[in-house]
Amino acid sequence: MNAPVEPSVDLAPAQRQGVDSIDTPALVVDLDAMDRNLQRMADFARKHGVRLRPHAKMHKSAELARLQMQAGAVGVCVQKVAEAEALVAGGVMDVLVTNEVIALPKLRRLAALARQVQAKGRIGLCVDSAEGVRRLAAIAAESFSGTPDSLDVYIEIDVGQHRCGVQPGPAAVALAREVLACSGLRLVGLQAYQGGAQHLRSVQARREAIAVAADAVRFTLTSLQQAGIGPLRVTGAGTGSFLLEAASGVWNELQAGSYLFMDADYAENEREPAQPAFEHALFVKTQVVSVTAQHAVCDAGHKSHAIDSGLPSVLPLEPGRDLVYANGGDEHGLLRPAGSNRQLPALGQMLWLIPGHCDPTVNLHNHLIGVRGGLRQGHVERIIRVDARGALT
Amino acid sequence: MNAPVEPSVDLAPAQRQGVDSIDTPALVVDLDAMDRNLQRMADFARKHGVRLRPHAKMHKSAELARLQMQAGAVGVCVQKVAEAEALVAGGVMDVLVTNEVIALPKLRRLAALARQVQAKGRIGLCVDSAEGVRRLAAIAAESFSGTPDSLDVYIEIDVGQHRCGVQPGPAAVALAREVLACSGLRLVGLQAYQGGAQHLRSVQARREAIAVAADAVRFTLTSLQQAGIGPLRVTGAGTGSFLLEAASGVWNELQAGSYLFMDADYAENEREPAQPAFEHALFVKTQVVSVTAQHAVCDAGHKSHAIDSGLPSVLPLEPGRDLVYANGGDEHGLLRPAGSNRQLPALGQMLWLIPGHCDPTVNLHNHLIGVRGGLRQGHVERIIRVDARGALT
Repeated sequence: MNAPVEPSVDLAPAQRQGVDSIDTPALVVDLDAMDRNLQRMADFARKHGVRLRPHAKMHKSAELARLQMQAGAVGVCVQKVAEAEALVAGGVMDVLVTNEVIALPKLRRLAALARQVQAKGRIGLCVDSAEGVRRLAAIAAESFSGTPDSLDVYIEIDVGQHRCGVQPGPAAVALAREVLACSGLRLVGLQAYQGGAQHLRSVQARREAIAVAADAVRFTLTSLQQAGIGPLRVTGAGTGSFLLEAASGVWNELQAGSYLFMDADYAENEREPAQPAFEHALFVKTQVVSVTAQHAVCDAGHKSHAIDSGLPSVLPLEPGRDLVYANGGDEHGLLRPAGSNRQLPALGQMLWLIPGHCDPTVNLHNHLIGVRGGLRQGHVERIIRVDARGALT
Repeated sequence: MNAPVEPSVDLAPAQRQGVDSIDTPALVVDLDAMDRNLQRMADFARKHGVRLRPHAKMHKSAELARLQMQAGAVGVCVQKVAEAEALVAGGVMDVLVTNEVIALPKLRRLAALARQVQAKGRIGLCVDSAEGVRRLAAIAAESFSGTPDSLDVYIEIDVGQHRCGVQPGPAAVALAREVLACSGLRLVGLQAYQGGAQHLRSVQARREAIAVAADAVRFTLTSLQQAGIGPLRVTGAGTGSFLLEAASGVWNELQAGSYLFMDADYAENEREPAQPAFEHALFVKTQVVSVTAQHAVCDAGHKSHAIDSGLPSVLPLEPGRDLVYANGGDEHGLLRPAGSNRQLPALGQMLWLIPGHCDPTVNLHNHLIGVRGGLRQGHVERIIRVDARGALT
């Protein structure tokens, strides 16, 4: 049922039930794998001397954002003002909205957040239009009555994804000047995310895409410098490419998010040899509810996991018992033997799916079930609320 | 933010704000169009002498289910026990779970619902295995201590979709005998839904598919009759094919659900000349947040609408200003001029999208914003809670 959505809870040892007790379908986090992913990325950022600002649009959880910050992250990113609200309410005090916001009511909400975190952290927003800057400045003036530097502003430049963002170079300089002319706004950085590079399968293709992006950023930084602006922070990167941004000498802040859970789509990427290996930590537990001569049918369809980046893969029940998942609609999945396997799973069998794309999968669920000790023998340690589930505005 | 999810509310006239006040992205229902769809389907069922049991997996709202029953529906269908719980809690007392349930805890919850609605309505479940019947009978015996006919049971037969269901004829008879041997269970009907026919584009293809399905049902009914079983109710059909099931003389209950809202995918079907025309009543309101030389970017991506059945279409701003929506990821949509249009929408422009698939789109949202008086000039009349949002178990 929808309401109330219970808050996160750490279960006392006496309340901890085994993995078998988890009703299906459910979104389960392998906390041991997640902790290792968390630490690997934190170590990576420290070693490379870059800031880490993980993208919380992926997990939408204040508890997980706080864990990331305890491990060294400077703050988090989100895509929506409503996500920022949910995280600030959960004690996350440094949030960058890596997106453009145009609606005045939303900008007012953002300014209210900036007042709320004052002295503890910062709220940031991206801009890619003079109109966006004017609106933000008007709201900052209204909300902070002349206080300088009330909101952090990042100029988004298009480094190859061709979605939002101004063109590198002069257009970015012009927009930076607009921001600098507004005393209520603090010009902090460049948002330079190459989303289109994240799932290029080959190492070579990703290297080429990020090399182009790096040139675009360098050109922009030089143009800004010639205009007497900067140096600005450069923030961007995702789980598919962050090693390249970190090694470029251009980016000094990484926004990767999916590394914490990983998904089937990212696992398809050829891995950079020097990049930390992340483990799948996010699973949909599902049960076989029908078996025919051709297939077994499980109770997880695309209301349980997003399919925009491909169907989930299936954890083999045991070595050699591979299964492939085919689309059975909103509420069902069709499981068929794969490879050398000839055996269907039995009616009632529990199975584990690895979602194709973690971000929109998490957004389907009110809670993540945190398991310690592995998916076979472990126990439920924590129920983690997806605080910003459905936080679209 | 996630919690609390506010209940449905009818706004007093003084509280009603214009459509302009709706923040984006938001899922909006055109209540006038919805009411017409509701009435058209109720009239159709009455005229054809068939029962209507609309599928509430689509809207997941107790309020809308009650509206459908006030207009003549005998009850509703759902796919999940948790959906049934949400609807019963909202006063909907006759619910059929058109799906197999195997987990004992879920069957206990279903039995608890059956006790709760006793004397006011019925709870039904589909079965397609002897094991499923045994489990259900065991729970019925445990929960009702010998009371006969405590739960309604439907034998699901595979009429061509090839997902769940036993084969037509003898296999269905064998399973019916299993049900009849359990005094706690009441054998009520055949679940005969041809999901694969719903989006066959041509009238002819749908007619052929439903003719095959009708033969499968007739064969099964004859087999049952020869075994001295029946007559059983025959329930099934969807928005793409219900005219055919109603005209067949075989089905006596229709389960269509999408007719209430319609979506872009169903609109692509060639319409049966005699079938009522339904209107789009479900829209995502979205705003342009970035404009480049190539496209405008809006704030609705596939966290706002499901894309399993195709991308949304865009309501033209005015005649001749057609736009096409391209995938911009989880949080963005890319809008480009289409047809003879050469004009991009402006920064800040509000637009209306027609989702590709209504069911999983509704499941992304906590509330539907009900608008009366049209999308241009209307006002917000009601906030409708999606009671069973995320009700997966």
